[in-house]
Amino acid sequence: MNLSRRDFTRLSALGLAAQLAPQLTPSLAAQSGGRKISYCIIGLGRISDHFMAGIQATSNSKVVALVSGHPDKAAKYADKYGVPKSSIYNYENMDSIRDNKAIEAVYIGLPNSMHAEYTIRCAKAGKNVLCEKPMATSVSDAQAMIDACKSANVKLMIAYRCHYEPTNLAAVKLIRDGALGEVQSIQSAFGFNCGAGEWRLDKPLAGGGPLMDVGIYSLNATRYLTGEEPASITAYAHTNPNDLRFKTVEENVVWTTKFPSGIVATCNTTYGAQMDGYFRVYGSKGWLEVNPAFIYDGLRLQAEYFDSKGKFVKVDQPNPEKDPIHFTREADHFSNCILENKTPQSLGEEGLRDMTYIREIYRSAGINMS
Amino acid sequence: MNLSRRDFTRLSALGLAAQLAPQLTPSLAAQSGGRKISYCIIGLGRISDHFMAGIQATSNSKVVALVSGHPDKAAKYADKYGVPKSSIYNYENMDSIRDNKAIEAVYIGLPNSMHAEYTIRCAKAGKNVLCEKPMATSVSDAQAMIDACKSANVKLMIAYRCHYEPTNLAAVKLIRDGALGEVQSIQSAFGFNCGAGEWRLDKPLAGGGPLMDVGIYSLNATRYLTGEEPASITAYAHTNPNDLRFKTVEENVVWTTKFPSGIVATCNTTYGAQMDGYFRVYGSKGWLEVNPAFIYDGLRLQAEYFDSKGKFVKVDQPNPEKDPIHFTREADHFSNCILENKTPQSLGEEGLRDMTYIREIYRSAGINMS
Repeated sequence: MNLSRRDFTRLSALGLAAQLAPQLTPSLAAQSGGRKISYCIIGLGRISDHFMAGIQATSNSKVVALVSGHPDKAAKYADKYGVPKSSIYNYENMDSIRDNKAIEAVYIGLPNSMHAEYTIRCAKAGKNVLCEKPMATSVSDAQAMIDACKSANVKLMIAYRCHYEPTNLAAVKLIRDGALGEVQSIQSAFGFNCGAGEWRLDKPLAGGGPLMDVGIYSLNATRYLTGEEPASITAYAHTNPNDLRFKTVEENVVWTTKFPSGIVATCNTTYGAQMDGYFRVYGSKGWLEVNPAFIYDGLRLQAEYFDSKGKFVKVDQPNPEKDPIHFTREADHFSNCILENKTPQSLGEEGLRDMTYIREIYRSAGINMS
Repeated sequence: MNLSRRDFTRLSALGLAAQLAPQLTPSLAAQSGGRKISYCIIGLGRISDHFMAGIQATSNSKVVALVSGHPDKAAKYADKYGVPKSSIYNYENMDSIRDNKAIEAVYIGLPNSMHAEYTIRCAKAGKNVLCEKPMATSVSDAQAMIDACKSANVKLMIAYRCHYEPTNLAAVKLIRDGALGEVQSIQSAFGFNCGAGEWRLDKPLAGGGPLMDVGIYSLNATRYLTGEEPASITAYAHTNPNDLRFKTVEENVVWTTKFPSGIVATCNTTYGAQMDGYFRVYGSKGWLEVNPAFIYDGLRLQAEYFDSKGKFVKVDQPNPEKDPIHFTREADHFSNCILENKTPQSLGEEGLRDMTYIREIYRSAGINMS
């Protein structure tokens, strides 16, 4: 099958655009008749705090249980979010959530390498699973998670916040509507200076370095922006040998993705520098940039292009929404899927695809993945 | 010799920084006692117009002759810049500039593939040569230009405007001063939507596509920003097969440069999209961006970093200077080198190095260079 670039653009528009269309103007599911999906939160790191705050702003979700290895932390969050002390579990007794019929869904905010085990345990306990990205630390774990949720007949969604975020979706829509003409290339980056001692620096917990943790945002963005799957990827990694933080994970990764239509994306990620997450898309009729694109609030879309009448259009659209709105939308979407028995937009299969590309990036950069 | 990253940073600081130091606070050479270097302008395209306007604002340079194949155009510019009609040459009789002792230097603003021939002819005529970038369309031509100027004992400078431009130099200085800590990575792009029919799209004249023409700015910037020479380069090109503009030159090129210290640069260039020239540098203590970085005016430096006392510093420095200031500085520098018998900062050897990297990028992207 010999597809022209224009065919690809059209196919892409039919593909991801159709998939994303219901979210293009995200509205919170206030129509759910008041019933709320009850979540058990597994792992009480920073992101789980954001997620629980996000849930509080939904009309269809609530937190009813916690799982943590730190009783003090669990007690603090139970107070903060109104969870009864009787619904605090630890990692030893958490399989008994099976018997807590109040729990319909779990949110997994654990270190990456624990996602697979806890997703599978929760699926076996009959709970729907919303799991943080990266989905897992290996392709086979990701596949096992999908299989376990299918067998248990529970839903599995990966917490790709940006799939539900209006500024990212506005960028996708501008591209799908042809505002930029034919997309030529994309640049994206996301990274930060990682504090010593964080679990992110420990490969057995993290599975990898910044690529797994934040580079995945750029990787995923290049896919939803193009609506295409990579045809090939080349990558390069560099780690300062004298920086004691980087004993087990890489410091810097850059990669170039070639998409079937010819679009090329160049992406950077690091744990050694502050690198505000952004993407910039260049097309034959103009460009757009979302910067910042991936953090919890303060997002901003800028674009310049010539419209179908040849008129110059300049867009500068800051998004005034505040954290935890991304988490509110994410929880709202998953709960709504459970309530109405719909398929989540960011399925396990989406996470699995990113895992295969991450594997390819590491392979090309000469890094062993777990 | 086994150099640590820190050693490299130090060596870089001694290398390019020392080389660039005189330009860090560029001042125009008003001290030259009033004598002006007389230029013959060869080729009367848009850039030569900018250059002649730039010369008018110097105190040490003037335009005294023109070479053009278009008598009408030559007459127009002769009027505009006060050049006597008797000093208008064409490409057939231009070797007779040898006998015009008023001409001490030439500015070559011709299509790329003509740079070598005219540089060599002018050197043989005993004139100092300021040649536009790209220096040539092949490594061997670049070497022949250097050799011809050496043999004729005339100076050769390549018109790397940004080497004399304060905003670019301020970025270099921030990096050399350690404001960003250890530099990790660089992103840069420069491209535009090329109008059909331009000589730039004709490989026999242009030597190549956007890489030769505007990508060279990003390539050169990654070298002056790091103060290092590339250790290796990988590249990818894509050309829309249905776009009739691109019969002989490429449309898009992206490349990744690995520098010896571990710094990695990812760069994009195109003739198929508006891609404002910029660079962004990420370091362990902060980042900087110059955007736009390569056009004739309106440049802007932004940076955020933590200083040596741990204090957060935010820089937002628009450069109010107006075109043709870049050309004024460039002409001023070259004239001053002639007047005081100094070595220009951007020698033919600098242009030759870029030609070798351009050859490497094309080779990696599977494109034949002339």
